[in-house]
Amino acid sequence: MRLHPSQLPKGARVYLPEEAARKRHVERGLLGVFERWGYREVVTSTFEYADVLATGTDADVQENMFKLVDRETGRLLALRADITPQIARIVATRLRDEPKPIRLAYVTNVFRYDEPQVSHYREFYQAGVELIGLEKPEAEVEIIAMALEGLRTLGLDRYQLVLGHPDFFRGLCEEAAADPARVRELRAALGRKDAATLERLVEALAPPREVREALLALPALFGHEAVLERAAGFARSKRSARALANLSEVYRLLTIYGLADAVLLDLGEVRGFDYYSGTYFEAYVSGFGASVAAGGRYDHMLARFGYDCPAVGFAFDVGRLLSVMEAQGVAVELPGPDFFIIDFTPDKTAALSLARRLRDLGASVARDIVSRPLEESVAYARAQRVRRVLVAGSPRTGADQLLVLDLADGSERTLPVAEVLADPLRHFGGLGHA
Amino acid sequence: MRLHPSQLPKGARVYLPEEAARKRHVERGLLGVFERWGYREVVTSTFEYADVLATGTDADVQENMFKLVDRETGRLLALRADITPQIARIVATRLRDEPKPIRLAYVTNVFRYDEPQVSHYREFYQAGVELIGLEKPEAEVEIIAMALEGLRTLGLDRYQLVLGHPDFFRGLCEEAAADPARVRELRAALGRKDAATLERLVEALAPPREVREALLALPALFGHEAVLERAAGFARSKRSARALANLSEVYRLLTIYGLADAVLLDLGEVRGFDYYSGTYFEAYVSGFGASVAAGGRYDHMLARFGYDCPAVGFAFDVGRLLSVMEAQGVAVELPGPDFFIIDFTPDKTAALSLARRLRDLGASVARDIVSRPLEESVAYARAQRVRRVLVAGSPRTGADQLLVLDLADGSERTLPVAEVLADPLRHFGGLGHA
Repeated sequence: MRLHPSQLPKGARVYLPEEAARKRHVERGLLGVFERWGYREVVTSTFEYADVLATGTDADVQENMFKLVDRETGRLLALRADITPQIARIVATRLRDEPKPIRLAYVTNVFRYDEPQVSHYREFYQAGVELIGLEKPEAEVEIIAMALEGLRTLGLDRYQLVLGHPDFFRGLCEEAAADPARVRELRAALGRKDAATLERLVEALAPPREVREALLALPALFGHEAVLERAAGFARSKRSARALANLSEVYRLLTIYGLADAVLLDLGEVRGFDYYSGTYFEAYVSGFGASVAAGGRYDHMLARFGYDCPAVGFAFDVGRLLSVMEAQGVAVELPGPDFFIIDFTPDKTAALSLARRLRDLGASVARDIVSRPLEESVAYARAQRVRRVLVAGSPRTGADQLLVLDLADGSERTLPVAEVLADPLRHFGGLGHA
Repeated sequence: MRLHPSQLPKGARVYLPEEAARKRHVERGLLGVFERWGYREVVTSTFEYADVLATGTDADVQENMFKLVDRETGRLLALRADITPQIARIVATRLRDEPKPIRLAYVTNVFRYDEPQVSHYREFYQAGVELIGLEKPEAEVEIIAMALEGLRTLGLDRYQLVLGHPDFFRGLCEEAAADPARVRELRAALGRKDAATLERLVEALAPPREVREALLALPALFGHEAVLERAAGFARSKRSARALANLSEVYRLLTIYGLADAVLLDLGEVRGFDYYSGTYFEAYVSGFGASVAAGGRYDHMLARFGYDCPAVGFAFDVGRLLSVMEAQGVAVELPGPDFFIIDFTPDKTAALSLARRLRDLGASVARDIVSRPLEESVAYARAQRVRRVLVAGSPRTGADQLLVLDLADGSERTLPVAEVLADPLRHFGGLGHA
């Protein structure tokens, strides 16, 4: 079957120039935050052996990996579906002797056979960090503060971080002697806040009365500080109690740090990967149903790669951030070139020397190479959002004169080429990117 | 078989923090050049239908694509092995109505089952541009100038651009009535500058005497302006003559632009993709055998996607650039955090407010969360290449005093925390990234 050459597979996505500029703006901004907090970028490989990748990856995600046969070895390869296990492996094998903590960042794409949704593709982009080697709750607080700082840096408002601890729920499931399949069903019902299904599942389990009450209370165990008190009555198992104590400590620190207002505690928050072993959070922006960032503590993953070491981390979903920025009308400056040079002289040396001079000063300069009437060139420049058009040897001026059209304010002036070359800054005060 | 979890497939590559910082430095620098010349980034998808990708891709590269079956449709997918065909398709289908020229840039990874070599992996990184809609030789000159500017921006020297035109050779092959298989063999021999094989192949072809001489002269047809004259005697076919005229015009412009010194003409340069239809160039750095950039004119590719439009483009190989920079000892600044804050007070508010204040000013600030003796923390900071260590509530000072250790010059001073908070710039003049 002959395909139309424009056809893209489901879930593939192209970013045209304006979208790509917005994406670059978001990724630069987030990497800037990570760097200001002392994190250093790493770059992982896009493909790996599928079973190595699987070592740290949740079963659901494993099933949705893009797999291919390695032509060389016949072994199964997979495209990365989650970066955290890759970084865990890198730390466990190549950075284990580095002094702790290790602060790592990444900005990259991941691949999953998810059903494409609004702002979600099968190849999507994440920007995140891993903080390795710290058991203390200050580690969670650091990455939560960074998540909030990232949202602020991008110019977003009306966001909230939902903070939970999967062990509170896991402790209740142990008390209820729920088998793994039942636990999965309970989690799914809680994730959907589906009270009817939850009740049916809990009734079928027939746990002790206190455990039953606790499980049914989960969807309502969200809010600020008071939630911790309400939950205390349900934390009868060691596992649940420890989770609650840990969550309380993180929340106490967030309060000291002035961040608690942006954080909603939610003990019914049981989404996230199985590998999360401690506090888990998701970031939401008002009016957008899916989380734009998620992360938490995963103390047991590095051990799977042979190195037992605590860790926390989180990632932003870049595509979803772009959507919520658009929804909130966050303006991203997308400037065109600072200068557009049109040269009517035969030897083009004016265009050449001007372009070089201005670029050396850090300005962006596009040249009109097409021979066309001045009006058409100016229309082109306008469409490219050029700030100033410089015309050498225009029919309206002498060959050694430069016609300067300011497309921003509509003004027009004529200057000797030599004078502009001698001191461009005098004539064009703000040189854009300069 | 159980794999060791550290095992990476052949040709996969991880960039640890220092290497990743160098890679980011190179990619940022090149994207900066592209932007200063008025190019706008696009982001293509990593996977596409294999036959759609194949539409614009050379046969050799097609054979070496990473292929996988689309779980959804059963169709064959491939990872991109070359970005130019993807961009050609995007322009032909989604940007065809944009006014010309269209200037596009990219910085991304590509995948090929090449035999891994020094500085070359099966996943590798390219930064390049496409200039679409211009037939004039000024287009080639623009991208050649950008290639040279990119090398200069990265701090390299002793580089040279080798410029050829495949049609000069193709014209000779037509005169010799060489079939495609023989043409491939001739190209391979020329690419290796293998005179013995070339002679054997030409003898077997038994072309007219003038053509025989021309083919055998190819490996020596390199140099500066004089080459054009020498080659003129061999350009008897229309195709060869047109190629030579085109190359002469490009070279004439390069001379006017002051770039000819960096350019070596080479009519025996016949490597590069089949899709190059006009001038073709590769950039070399002294002491490194492989090219670090390549590009040229490909006027017929967009037509394969249904839109007939001339185009030129080129790409840098980021991995190879990193190698030649290392070989030439180009220093890339890899600063650690500007500040490292250690707080011995119980409530940590000094650390918190200092970190926030300094980050808001654009400085990078890492915090020491581990409880350990001061000397160990300072040793850690030193290993992270921290510039200044700030110690709040140190055993050696009061709780409201800040001990400032400058790791760069070894100096030490004590300041009141409140004073530093009030005006950090006064105390720490240069705030690193700020």
